[in-house]
Amino acid sequence: MAGIVVQNIERADADVIDGLAAAGVATVHEAQGRIGLLAHYMRPIYPGARIAGSAVTISAPPGDNWMIHVAVEQLKAGDILVLAPTSPCFDGYFGDLLATSAQARGCRGLVIDAGVRDVRDLTQMNFPVWSRAVFAQGTVKATLGSVNVPIVCANAAIEPGDVIVADDDGVCVVKRADAAAVLKKAQAREANEADKREKLAAGVLGLDIYDMRGKLEQMGLKYI
Amino acid sequence: MAGIVVQNIERADADVIDGLAAAGVATVHEAQGRIGLLAHYMRPIYPGARIAGSAVTISAPPGDNWMIHVAVEQLKAGDILVLAPTSPCFDGYFGDLLATSAQARGCRGLVIDAGVRDVRDLTQMNFPVWSRAVFAQGTVKATLGSVNVPIVCANAAIEPGDVIVADDDGVCVVKRADAAAVLKKAQAREANEADKREKLAAGVLGLDIYDMRGKLEQMGLKYI
Amino acid sequence: MAGIVVQNIERADADVIDGLAAAGVATVHEAQGRIGLLAHYMRPIYPGARIAGSAVTISAPPGDNWMIHVAVEQLKAGDILVLAPTSPCFDGYFGDLLATSAQARGCRGLVIDAGVRDVRDLTQMNFPVWSRAVFAQGTVKATLGSVNVPIVCANAAIEPGDVIVADDDGVCVVKRADAAAVLKKAQAREANEADKREKLAAGVLGLDIYDMRGKLEQMGLKYI
Amino acid sequence: MAGIVVQNIERADADVIDGLAAAGVATVHEAQGRIGLLAHYMRPIYPGARIAGSAVTISAPPGDNWMIHVAVEQLKAGDILVLAPTSPCFDGYFGDLLATSAQARGCRGLVIDAGVRDVRDLTQMNFPVWSRAVFAQGTVKATLGSVNVPIVCANAAIEPGDVIVADDDGVCVVKRADAAAVLKKAQAREANEADKREKLAAGVLGLDIYDMRGKLEQMGLKYI
Amino acid sequence: MAGIVVQNIERADADVIDGLAAAGVATVHEAQGRIGLLAHYMRPIYPGARIAGSAVTISAPPGDNWMIHVAVEQLKAGDILVLAPTSPCFDGYFGDLLATSAQARGCRGLVIDAGVRDVRDLTQMNFPVWSRAVFAQGTVKATLGSVNVPIVCANAAIEPGDVIVADDDGVCVVKRADAAAVLKKAQAREANEADKREKLAAGVLGLDIYDMRGKLEQMGLKYI
Amino acid sequence: MAGIVVQNIERADADVIDGLAAAGVATVHEAQGRIGLLAHYMRPIYPGARIAGSAVTISAPPGDNWMIHVAVEQLKAGDILVLAPTSPCFDGYFGDLLATSAQARGCRGLVIDAGVRDVRDLTQMNFPVWSRAVFAQGTVKATLGSVNVPIVCANAAIEPGDVIVADDDGVCVVKRADAAAVLKKAQAREANEADKREKLAAGVLGLDIYDMRGKLEQMGLKYI
Repeated sequence: MAGIVVQNIERADADVIDGLAAAGVATVHEAQGRIGLLAHYMRPIYPGARIAGSAVTISAPPGDNWMIHVAVEQLKAGDILVLAPTSPCFDGYFGDLLATSAQARGCRGLVIDAGVRDVRDLTQMNFPVWSRAVFAQGTVKATLGSVNVPIVCANAAIEPGDVIVADDDGVCVVKRADAAAVLKKAQAREANEADKREKLAAGVLGLDIYDMRGKLEQMGLKYI
Repeated sequence: MAGIVVQNIERADADVIDGLAAAGVATVHEAQGRIGLLAHYMRPIYPGARIAGSAVTISAPPGDNWMIHVAVEQLKAGDILVLAPTSPCFDGYFGDLLATSAQARGCRGLVIDAGVRDVRDLTQMNFPVWSRAVFAQGTVKATLGSVNVPIVCANAAIEPGDVIVADDDGVCVVKRADAAAVLKKAQAREANEADKREKLAAGVLGLDIYDMRGKLEQMGLKYI
Repeated sequence: MAGIVVQNIERADADVIDGLAAAGVATVHEAQGRIGLLAHYMRPIYPGARIAGSAVTISAPPGDNWMIHVAVEQLKAGDILVLAPTSPCFDGYFGDLLATSAQARGCRGLVIDAGVRDVRDLTQMNFPVWSRAVFAQGTVKATLGSVNVPIVCANAAIEPGDVIVADDDGVCVVKRADAAAVLKKAQAREANEADKREKLAAGVLGLDIYDMRGKLEQMGLKYI
Repeated sequence: MAGIVVQNIERADADVIDGLAAAGVATVHEAQGRIGLLAHYMRPIYPGARIAGSAVTISAPPGDNWMIHVAVEQLKAGDILVLAPTSPCFDGYFGDLLATSAQARGCRGLVIDAGVRDVRDLTQMNFPVWSRAVFAQGTVKATLGSVNVPIVCANAAIEPGDVIVADDDGVCVVKRADAAAVLKKAQAREANEADKREKLAAGVLGLDIYDMRGKLEQMGLKYI
Repeated sequence: MAGIVVQNIERADADVIDGLAAAGVATVHEAQGRIGLLAHYMRPIYPGARIAGSAVTISAPPGDNWMIHVAVEQLKAGDILVLAPTSPCFDGYFGDLLATSAQARGCRGLVIDAGVRDVRDLTQMNFPVWSRAVFAQGTVKATLGSVNVPIVCANAAIEPGDVIVADDDGVCVVKRADAAAVLKKAQAREANEADKREKLAAGVLGLDIYDMRGKLEQMGLKYI
Repeated sequence: MAGIVVQNIERADADVIDGLAAAGVATVHEAQGRIGLLAHYMRPIYPGARIAGSAVTISAPPGDNWMIHVAVEQLKAGDILVLAPTSPCFDGYFGDLLATSAQARGCRGLVIDAGVRDVRDLTQMNFPVWSRAVFAQGTVKATLGSVNVPIVCANAAIEPGDVIVADDDGVCVVKRADAAAVLKKAQAREANEADKREKLAAGVLGLDIYDMRGKLEQMGLKYI
């Protein structure tokens, strides 16, 4: 099944994507019903980045980064590269040269269930990466994989064109078709949270704001 | 055994607590005989925080943060929330809203053997957290746990009111009744270290400061 | 076999060592044929350090840092301490006092397949450490190990006097005898990369720069 | 999205399923192009079981096994329960009572990316389980999940009705629509392997059977 | 705090202990309110053992098994050795000689949050061990620990004389004072389960036995 | 450096090798000064095997088993294949066909710091394997590695012709040149242990056999 490059993928609306970036991972995850998170071991190489973009997916053999070169050609401005190795791997598939190339095409970042290297350069370039590992281990270009096929990356199912949201809390995927609806819910949630935050800051308890005391008593909670 | 909230816990003297914060985790751990450390996987969400406070403990089911709301009401200024899930869990039990509420009550930070989210906001709020994971995964409010009962958190036994010390080296617990004595030893240790540090900086060897050469020779160490 | 201190080890040329530091881990690793990396779990305690130096090796029992004191005496300016425990261990073998002593002798940093503590102080001292863990757990001085014997550290074989290169990407070892040749290849590689980086930044694809299209087609890659 | 039970799912042909069981995980995985494996941490609770069946999928909250009771009602003879928690969990969702119930309905086994308990009883009942952990930790029945929805289990995407193959090598999923074709390829592969096995047992080298010497020489392999 | 041996510990009633062994880990854990389990990584070195006994606890430095010799003298018939290292360790603290000695004193087994070796011999001797690792790594006898002090072993707090129950599902601790009451609940639970098991085997669904349908509907579960 | 096959390696004396097998891993490890163990995660695919043999080493890229075919040709009766991937990998490099081929050449088993598959067949063939994982994941034949070069396997340095000893306790390497001397010490140790075992079985305490009481008292051990 490897050896396929899908060239024309559909993407979500740019405004929706940017709205999801502004909302951030935790809010988007909640807004879509607590689904879509990638595994917690996916961590940013530097703090503070918050991006969203359309997934250009890569399925690559362990220790072989050939398909990233193929994928870069498929990038459009606003895309995010998402790589899942076909078996667990920590190698450094991606470094500053590939980042230079991807950035030249408008790519916003990389999500990789494997390793990355040249992280000092990537930080200076402001090219964010969420990865399983930082590892200088080099890779070969010997075996085919595929680009823009459905993948499972860090225990999340991702299709090309799905919206990827990533920040300091990790990475979340939003199905392309759901993106607009999720954004709406995320924004509603944010509006709602602003009000709660104010009350909480003033010392009102969540127990009262969310009216939990009765339910807790009924469940049998005992104060002693 | 779940479903209990202990309301009146005893706390150590505020000056003692602040003294322990100033000493830091490594010194306090040594001063009390190399005990009391939480597991090494407990890491701060941002570098540089160094706090101490009285433990308000939470025993919570996996993926259920209801009891944190209950615990917040029990917080007094200078306390630290300490949460142990009843089975291993990485979910994001705690985010910026709960931090706002806890901070409004004078809480100094959170120690959680699970996940935390909204870490960008928490960093901006200067609300430090030591956790096993950063993970946006949301939680429910469906099952009771307990507040201010003895817990085991990250392989350390903690009772409500024990003093928690946390910094870039991790987290340490000091039994409430031992806190004053430990502080005294910690300060003695620090005084002692200042002198050693000066000698070492001047190039005197630990081998000589600690008078180790004889013992090493007797043990059979061979220089070749 | 424990209980040996080798006092006179050979070191690589200082200029070669400094050249390797400038090249960095990823480039050096590639230049010597993709070998020599320590395991990816070896992470720096703070970002931004990039060093190289001659390995003064330590084989130490779990939870026993006695041999570090012995090793410090063997340090010359430009050296790096490299410690492998004789069985897996996360304890904090090394803190600010030992760093003060090592730094006074010109030591450039520590690579340890175990834990380190006092990381706030070490950061302020600008003494970089690459470790498996940050953990305040104290150690004893009861059992002999060895200094300047061959070790396996984080799955890499290291001999005393080998060149250690370490930066944000991790840690790499270069055999002393190969150091000059590896530096030459690393510099050639860097020169070559500068040209590629420019082309990639201008939007030329790796597919074209590396002339991959024919090979990919021949392997059966299909665009759809 | 939680709270859904899909009642009528399509299943693959029973003969095809049994054929895939006979072929085993490694052969099926190869036959379908080296895809479909669940993560290597999924291990059988006892050696020797080799089964295949139609997936009845369960998406369950961490530490909550309520949906297994719902799923049991959906089981038909020849099915396999496949459970993915909505976040990482090691709790013992399943024990001998649930196994009794599932077995009474013709269920062939359980695949669970979490924990299982009562493994002595399950072994005696000849009810095989592939799990991430063996853990007695009990679960609650408080929050809804879903049954027979698409899930990601141990890093593999699984839809209800897909064919699950499991043996001592682990667990593999075959898309329902591909099952017949994969079986054909698996059987061809097996026929082919019998011949090779005979030659290899007689001492003929793989280097010669697969005609590798030329390619290796061309790649630059040097015998010294 | 190390360097203490408590010689006279209280133990639970022998009949109660044997009753808890018969009930097994999962049942005992449930009977006492889903508490007391040691971490899931504690696995038996061979399947089929099911024991209970009074804990003789050992706190030992990493890689130092001296205190086991001290603890053996404290053993009475029916006891179980329980060892927690003072920091994470995988070394093989215990082998066939120590098992011979412990067995000669009536010890029923070992629970160790570290490694064990000579597992072939231990299996032949029918001396069961639950451990974090099997590892031949030898240990020293250089530093004091303590015997019969409170410990935290594999994330569970254990006091000397507490009842340890261990079988293929793992290890559970029952507070000595609670042992008789927990046994009563465990036996009630078993009686209750026998009836349910029969019904489930006859094809009655848990949904009906536990009367779950109404609650599920009320929670919003939808069948489609 | 990859792409080399060393054809003539020296091996230890067959009687010495067989003697080391009889002694077993724990005894050999102790006899040579507590060195030489491979990491504790190296586990046998079935219990009960105890072998020793000369290492035919393989350095292989992740997910690429080509070099195993090359190595099989280098096997002589009594050898053991030892494979280290060039970066961490869990793939199933080896299955029943390769085992058939290796066994036909007198190979006694496989030690692999990666995955293995067809474990049911390997068990029936009585071909023992010590591995990091059992995983059906297939591999390619695309990139060169080397055969009979020094490797680091599971954190142990191994040279071709070194003696590998493996049993239920794990895997140990003995330097070829040391093999005869180590055997002598191992046998002395065994003789010595037989006597101790008898005393311990008779109830004599290790405290007395090893004359530890005085040292313990002097160190400050307190009985209370």
